[in-house]
Amino acid sequence: MGVVQTLLDALGEDVVTTAPDRLEAMRTDRSGWVAEGSPLALVEARTVEEVQEAMRIADAARTPVVPRGAGTGLAGGAVGTEGSIVVSVERMNRILEISAEDEYAVVEPGVITADLNRALEEHGLWYAPDPVSKNISTIGGNIATNAGGLVCTKYGVTREAVLALDVVLPGGTLLRTGRRTIKGVTGYDLTALFVGSEGTLGIVVGATVRALPAPKGETMTLGALFSDVKAAASASAAITAAGLRPSVMELIDAATLNLIRDYLGHEVFENLLGTSAGGSYFLVQFDAGTGALAGTRALQLVEENGGTGTLSHDPAEAEGLLRIRGSANPALTAAGTMLVEDVAVPRSRMPEMFARIEEIARRHDVRIPTIAHAGDGNLHPTFIFDGPDVPPEVWAAADEMFEASTEFGGTLTGEHGVGLLKRRWLKGELGEDSYRLQAEVKAVFDPNGIMNPGKVFD
Amino acid sequence: MGVVQTLLDALGEDVVTTAPDRLEAMRTDRSGWVAEGSPLALVEARTVEEVQEAMRIADAARTPVVPRGAGTGLAGGAVGTEGSIVVSVERMNRILEISAEDEYAVVEPGVITADLNRALEEHGLWYAPDPVSKNISTIGGNIATNAGGLVCTKYGVTREAVLALDVVLPGGTLLRTGRRTIKGVTGYDLTALFVGSEGTLGIVVGATVRALPAPKGETMTLGALFSDVKAAASASAAITAAGLRPSVMELIDAATLNLIRDYLGHEVFENLLGTSAGGSYFLVQFDAGTGALAGTRALQLVEENGGTGTLSHDPAEAEGLLRIRGSANPALTAAGTMLVEDVAVPRSRMPEMFARIEEIARRHDVRIPTIAHAGDGNLHPTFIFDGPDVPPEVWAAADEMFEASTEFGGTLTGEHGVGLLKRRWLKGELGEDSYRLQAEVKAVFDPNGIMNPGKVFD
Repeated sequence: MGVVQTLLDALGEDVVTTAPDRLEAMRTDRSGWVAEGSPLALVEARTVEEVQEAMRIADAARTPVVPRGAGTGLAGGAVGTEGSIVVSVERMNRILEISAEDEYAVVEPGVITADLNRALEEHGLWYAPDPVSKNISTIGGNIATNAGGLVCTKYGVTREAVLALDVVLPGGTLLRTGRRTIKGVTGYDLTALFVGSEGTLGIVVGATVRALPAPKGETMTLGALFSDVKAAASASAAITAAGLRPSVMELIDAATLNLIRDYLGHEVFENLLGTSAGGSYFLVQFDAGTGALAGTRALQLVEENGGTGTLSHDPAEAEGLLRIRGSANPALTAAGTMLVEDVAVPRSRMPEMFARIEEIARRHDVRIPTIAHAGDGNLHPTFIFDGPDVPPEVWAAADEMFEASTEFGGTLTGEHGVGLLKRRWLKGELGEDSYRLQAEVKAVFDPNGIMNPGKVFD
Repeated sequence: MGVVQTLLDALGEDVVTTAPDRLEAMRTDRSGWVAEGSPLALVEARTVEEVQEAMRIADAARTPVVPRGAGTGLAGGAVGTEGSIVVSVERMNRILEISAEDEYAVVEPGVITADLNRALEEHGLWYAPDPVSKNISTIGGNIATNAGGLVCTKYGVTREAVLALDVVLPGGTLLRTGRRTIKGVTGYDLTALFVGSEGTLGIVVGATVRALPAPKGETMTLGALFSDVKAAASASAAITAAGLRPSVMELIDAATLNLIRDYLGHEVFENLLGTSAGGSYFLVQFDAGTGALAGTRALQLVEENGGTGTLSHDPAEAEGLLRIRGSANPALTAAGTMLVEDVAVPRSRMPEMFARIEEIARRHDVRIPTIAHAGDGNLHPTFIFDGPDVPPEVWAAADEMFEASTEFGGTLTGEHGVGLLKRRWLKGELGEDSYRLQAEVKAVFDPNGIMNPGKVFD
C-alpha cells in the first residue's frame, strides 16, 4: 500500500479514495468489459496540480495509471485494471473561456460535451463533433478516443476540432501542444498525436477547441424504408457519389429497427415513422447552406435504389425522424448483453460489408443488429447475447468481421478506439513496422510504461 | 566519394547526378536562402524502390538526406546542404487512382497540386488546400510543410486533406500510415505526425488525399479599399465574429498594393479595381452554399469600419478582384530581395499585429509590405531589401515581429514551416519540454539523424 499512502498523504482523502464500491465501479465502462482485479485507488483530481502530483508519485512507484473521464467508452480504454491508480478528471469540468470573435473555447477535460454546446449556443457558436454519448461523455474522453458522431461526415471528427492541449506526462511535466490560431506549423503536430491516444501517453488536463458558427436556417430531413439493407447502403453510397454533402446520413438495419419498435412501443413508433412496417431505416439530413435541390435529389436516389421515403422541412417531423435513430442505443441495450463493434470501410463498400455481416451472423448463428454512420462508412455491428461473458461464437464472428473490414480496405475501429476489446487485431491492421514504431513513440512520453498499460498495445 | 559511388552503382547515372550545375540549383529554394557548401549528389528517384535504396545507402553511410519536391518552399526546408544527398521526388508524378464514389485520390508525391485539381475536375471533385504556389509546388512538398492557402479558412489545411501516407524511413523501410476510410482510430495518428514534418522523419513517396465535391453555383465577391490597414483588419475580424464563413478573405496593405499597381501598370490596375487610388485592399469571397445575405452583411461591416467596397456576382469581375491578390507575389518579387514571413495570430488580434508591424518597420527603417490570409489570422510580412544578404536591421525587426506574434497568442509560422529560416525562434515558441520530446520523436524514426539535419531543429 506504499503508493496509495503516498497519494493520500500528498492529496488527502477528498481526492484519493479506496472505498471498495467506488473502486468496483472503476473496473468497467460502457463496453461491458470488467477488469479481473481491482485498482488500488481512485484519484479524483480537481486541479492540474493534483494530476501532476499523482503522476509524479505513480511514475516514481512504477504504478500503472488509468486516465478516466465519465467512463462511457465502448472499448474498455478507461477500465481500471488490477493494481492501477485510476485518475479521474470528471471534477475538472469548468469552461474557462469562450471567444466568440476567435471561435474557440478553452475547457477542462471533465466538461460534458453537450454542456459545452449549451454554453456556446449563447454565443451563436457550436462544437461540431457529436458522439451519440454527448450527453454523458466528457470532452477529455472524446479527445482520448478521437470521437466521431453523426455530423462528422460533414464537419469532421474530434481531431479536426482540437487546436491545443495541456497534457500531464508521467513524472508530472505539464506539456502544452498546439496554439489558439487556426493555422500553425511549428514542429510536429503533437496535438494530433495525443488525440485518439486513449490515455497511453499522458493525461489531458485542458483543451482549446474550435467553435464554428452554428448552422442557421432550414434543414431538410429524409426518412426512408428499404426492404433490403444492402439497397439502403447503395442509396447512401449514391448520395455520397452525387456530392450532395448531407450533415447526417445514418442507416439502421431491420433487426435494429424491430428492437426500436419494441422499445418505443408500436403506437409511438408509428406516430414517428408514419408506418409500423419494418425494414431498414435510412435517415438523411441536410443543414442550412446546402442547395435546395439536394433533398429532392437524395429522395430520387432513394427511390432509384428501391426505397420509400418522405422529405420534410418541418422541424417537429425531423425531430421524430431523428428520434428513431436516437432510440437505437437504448433499444439495443434492452435487448441483451452487447458487444458494440465499430468497423469502417470506404463508403462504396458498405453494401458488401452489410452482406458479409448478414452472412457471418447466419453461419455462426449469432445476432448482429447493425447501425451505421453511413456518410462515413462507419458501421456499428452489435453482437447481442445472454451475458455476461462473450460466447466463443461471438469472438469467432467478430474475427471474421474484422478480416472483412480489412479486405474491403477499411479499419477495425472508426471512432471507439482499440482499448482492450480490439488489441488482438491491432497488429494485423497496422503491420509490424508501424506497431513497433508506435510503441517507441509511446516510450518517448512514457519511458516507464505506466500509462494505461495493456490498452491499445499488448 | 564512397557513398556517391555506392549510389551510382546501385541506381545508375539516370538517377544519380553529380553535375555541378544541377547541384548548384539544389543549394537554394524560393526562400532565397543559399546553403554554404554543396550537396554531394542529387538522386532523382522514379520509383519507391529507388527511394528505399537511396535511404538504405545513405543511412548506412550516415550521410544526411534532404528530401525535395519542386523546391518552392519559403523557409529553406528543402535546401541541399553541404555534404548531403538531395533525394528529389519530382519525377514521381503520377496520379495512381481517383475514386469519385469514395472521394479520394492516390498520388505520387511529385504531382503538381494544380495538376491534381485538373484531373479531379473531370470527376466533379476538388482537392481543397490551395497554396499560392499551387501551379509550381508538389503535393509532397505541400504535405511536408502542411501547406495552407486561400480557401483554408473554410476548407482546412493540408493536414485535413491527407488520409494516408507511404513513407520511406532511413534504412529503407516503407511505412504505411492511415487508411482510405474517412474515419479511423487504430493506434496513433502517424499521418498527422508526418504532415508538416518538413522532411525530418522520412520521405513521403505516396499519399491518399481527400477529394471533396467541387463547390457549384454562384459566388459572391467583395473587393474593398481602406485608408488604414488596421481598419481593414477590424472589418475582417468583424466578418469572422459575425459567423459569415467566407471561403476567401485576404488583406493587402497599402505598400503592397502600390507595388501591385506598379507591377500591373496603372491602366490594368484601374480596369480591375475601378480606381487607381491606393489604400489597403480587402478581398472576400463567399462560395455556393453560403446564405445569400452574407455578402450584403459583409459589405455593411466593411462600411461600418470605414471601407468602400463593391459586391459582385459576376464571374469576370470576381476574376479581376482575385487577380489583384494573385499579383502580390510577382509584384513583391520584382521589388527587391524578399524575406517572406508567415506569422499567425488569433483573428481578433490582427489589427494590433498590423499596427505593430508598422511600428517595427518605422523604428528599424525597413520595408515590410504585408499581405494576410485574414480569415485565418495568417500574415505574410515581407521584408524587402537590396540583396542578396539579409541586413542586420531586418533580422532585428524579424526578431521583434516573432516576439509580437507570441505576445498576441500566435505562432511564428502559419503555413510555410520552420526550415532554416525560423529555427532560431522555435524553442522560444515550443518551450524546452516540447522541443526535447519532439527531438526524441524524431530519433524514433531517424535514429542516426540523417533526415534533413539542421532543418527545424538545431
